[in-house]
Amino acid sequence: MPNNGKVKPGYKRTLDLKHGCVEMVHGNGGRSMAQLIQQMFVAAFDNEFLRLMNDQACFPVFGGRMVMSTDSHVVTPLFFPGGDIGSLSIHGTINDIVMSGAKPCYLAASFILEEGFPLADLKRIVDSMAQATKAARVPIVTGDTKVVEKNSGDGVFITTTGIGMVPEGIYISCENARPGDKILVSGTLGDHGIAIMAWRENLSFQTNIESDTAPLHDLVAKMISTTSNIHVLRDPTRGGVASALNEIAQQSSVGMMLYENKLPILEQVQAACEFLGFDPLYIANEGKLIAICAAEDAENLLNAMQAHPLGNNAAIIGEVIEDTHCFVQMQTRFGGKRVVDWLNGEQLPRIC
Amino acid sequence: MPNNGKVKPGYKRTLDLKHGCVEMVHGNGGRSMAQLIQQMFVAAFDNEFLRLMNDQACFPVFGGRMVMSTDSHVVTPLFFPGGDIGSLSIHGTINDIVMSGAKPCYLAASFILEEGFPLADLKRIVDSMAQATKAARVPIVTGDTKVVEKNSGDGVFITTTGIGMVPEGIYISCENARPGDKILVSGTLGDHGIAIMAWRENLSFQTNIESDTAPLHDLVAKMISTTSNIHVLRDPTRGGVASALNEIAQQSSVGMMLYENKLPILEQVQAACEFLGFDPLYIANEGKLIAICAAEDAENLLNAMQAHPLGNNAAIIGEVIEDTHCFVQMQTRFGGKRVVDWLNGEQLPRIC
Repeated sequence: MPNNGKVKPGYKRTLDLKHGCVEMVHGNGGRSMAQLIQQMFVAAFDNEFLRLMNDQACFPVFGGRMVMSTDSHVVTPLFFPGGDIGSLSIHGTINDIVMSGAKPCYLAASFILEEGFPLADLKRIVDSMAQATKAARVPIVTGDTKVVEKNSGDGVFITTTGIGMVPEGIYISCENARPGDKILVSGTLGDHGIAIMAWRENLSFQTNIESDTAPLHDLVAKMISTTSNIHVLRDPTRGGVASALNEIAQQSSVGMMLYENKLPILEQVQAACEFLGFDPLYIANEGKLIAICAAEDAENLLNAMQAHPLGNNAAIIGEVIEDTHCFVQMQTRFGGKRVVDWLNGEQLPRIC
Repeated sequence: MPNNGKVKPGYKRTLDLKHGCVEMVHGNGGRSMAQLIQQMFVAAFDNEFLRLMNDQACFPVFGGRMVMSTDSHVVTPLFFPGGDIGSLSIHGTINDIVMSGAKPCYLAASFILEEGFPLADLKRIVDSMAQATKAARVPIVTGDTKVVEKNSGDGVFITTTGIGMVPEGIYISCENARPGDKILVSGTLGDHGIAIMAWRENLSFQTNIESDTAPLHDLVAKMISTTSNIHVLRDPTRGGVASALNEIAQQSSVGMMLYENKLPILEQVQAACEFLGFDPLYIANEGKLIAICAAEDAENLLNAMQAHPLGNNAAIIGEVIEDTHCFVQMQTRFGGKRVVDWLNGEQLPRIC
């Protein structure tokens, strides 16, 4: 949080967390900004690195392979069934790191606040982030705050960036899928996107569907301890499983065959998708992963995933095949075949 | 750039960089987003890490002390005399890393684009970023792209995050200032803020003043090779030298005494400040640093700084004193003394 600094002695004004709003002065680099940072961010995220209040965090690392990932979060609404932009911003970046097989170590968080945004809502979001970082044991060590005028933003945008270290011997990457490999997912598909959509559309079924937002590092640690032979991990967020698999097929120069009757989809999600005209394969997930591994490891890996709370509904949903066109296809419930193409056109804006 | 992936064979549609605009589909996680990422970002930032197109970048690091810093950039206007939001977003994060004495290694870049923003302008910004990363020899290894609806953003916001490694034996931090230390700046003060302000106000003197936006890692490397005894480095951005020194005074529990007649300020900047009613001590800089070192090293350090193109106008502007109130004071040109307080109230919104 550049230009932060501690509040001066004798300067004890406290933020009005009940009725106050974000003001342009909160971004000016002076006393009001220092106050916002101390009383809002440092109070919630406190740790030995952040506490030093430099414009950067400094920490020890061991040599090896490091991963870095960044994600801006612009989800609307900011609060939704099962989560909010705060927890989502922590889980999203942790998951991107974890999909390389790495252990997440440190996070940075940068806020773009709109003038007039209620401090009470910001506090709720920040507390949710703090809780998510604590639960995941990954601290926010540095950050930044900017304020833009009313109507130049939309409440709060949060960009989180994380770094992590890859354990020795692990080489997981989206270009490693090989014909014959099995394709697994860790649970039901489309929960996050449909939870958001139901909320936006104020649909009566909304109460039943919650976002699946969750950090996947413990599940992945368990999977890696089961087999060191996972070829690909990927969290199917924006664009859903269909887009993620098309990208992997492309990156690995392979085709894929899915089995429609193996796809784990909640009944309410399926119903909502039919009602709204969506295909659950294209709907965003925020606490699910795709794993691709050698056929001989698939059952073992599946069992390990199902034994973890975040992998209860894991399933083998298809296999990697040879295909110079890199098509993702699906055997339908009725015995036919169809191509599962890239997402084309707009589906669910601002889902994450 | 999560959910990116290469463009499918046979799918050759190219972005209309002349007349095209950012559309909501560019953020959907599907084919249009992949196209934007490939043709806009990867084309400009290309390197071995980014090219793998995973949701995270993976690279080797050596053990030691690492620094991490993040900054959102919301400057308006996007293009200003001497730079643009693109170069600024690279220099800003590099400089935050360098102020710990670290060598910057890798950058992540995340874009929040407003629907309707011209692709030609985005290309200009991205090219400017590419040029800045090449000049600084610090690659962008991963990124993200989000699109928000018209009027929910303001053209382009860019959040950059960087990591760097601190050389053995270097411990530079804002709590290390000691009474007796000398305070140096690397050049003229207020150029960036006044360049922006002049542009915004459409003032006739605008043509003469340019932003000082520049990456400071070469200057700092030179300074560190001159003396391993630099106590504090800080880039005085938002809030200017006054806010930065107040924060350092606070963090180090010391006071400071500045000499007004030693402050390097361009004549046009001084004139603009008087005209607009600003104090140059509070105006943002984007290519300047404050250095605090032991008195016996100050002349040596000054000479080293002045020998570097980015330190031509370096000066010793004051000293650290004992003061339990942690006040920053200034001996004025006329022999008096005044307190240089924290910036209070709004001065220059969206300066970076």
